[in-house]
Amino acid sequence: MLQETLETIVAATPGAQAAVLMGFDGIAVVQVTGADADADIEAIAMEFSFRFIELRKAAEALDLGDITDLTIKAERGTLLVRVISEEFFACVFLRDTSHLGKGRYVLRTHSAALREGL
Amino acid sequence: MLQETLETIVAATPGAQAAVLMGFDGIAVVQVTGADADADIEAIAMEFSFRFIELRKAAEALDLGDITDLTIKAERGTLLVRVISEEFFACVFLRDTSHLGKGRYVLRTHSAALREGL
Repeated sequence: MLQETLETIVAATPGAQAAVLMGFDGIAVVQVTGADADADIEAIAMEFSFRFIELRKAAEALDLGDITDLTIKAERGTLLVRVISEEFFACVFLRDTSHLGKGRYVLRTHSAALREGL
Repeated sequence: MLQETLETIVAATPGAQAAVLMGFDGIAVVQVTGADADADIEAIAMEFSFRFIELRKAAEALDLGDITDLTIKAERGTLLVRVISEEFFACVFLRDTSHLGKGRYVLRTHSAALREGL
């Protein structure tokens, strides 16, 4: 069920290579890697997971509430992140970033299914 | 010149309250606060600036290159961030986030002017 939802997210997101559902402790629950993927989504999400905790703490300290979404665009890839619950986030990795808005929409509309599947 | 560019960015971004051009050391160069702003953009950007350095280090370590853009969406506000140079970033704060794509576009198209003004 979680696997299928992640597969749907990757298939529906233009330019998406892979997706992972991970705990903020850096432990992956499920991951999906597309056929043409050349990036290690688990390593990427794990490396960022601890930084996400710091960002969430900062947002709370600034009275902005909890973080719901993050987009990190770098020279050679973009990460779309959606906070699924207190302990988990979903993350999609894209090499081609011409359709970021669509990618965020896809992730947002599937986050309830991910939450229920946990 | 920098002031004018930031003013243009805030005016052209739907839902934008304020913008700041800041060093990654947390020191603001210029900031613009709209008439209806109820958030302290300088405090927000400063609190996040050190975390941005950590995110950039992580992206480099993962061979993703330097980070060019960040979007941090929280329950009560969204931060659009654009890396302007090795040492500086521009940051727009929005309460209403129905037009994020437009905001990112405005920030991107003005980043050369900010870079030249530094």
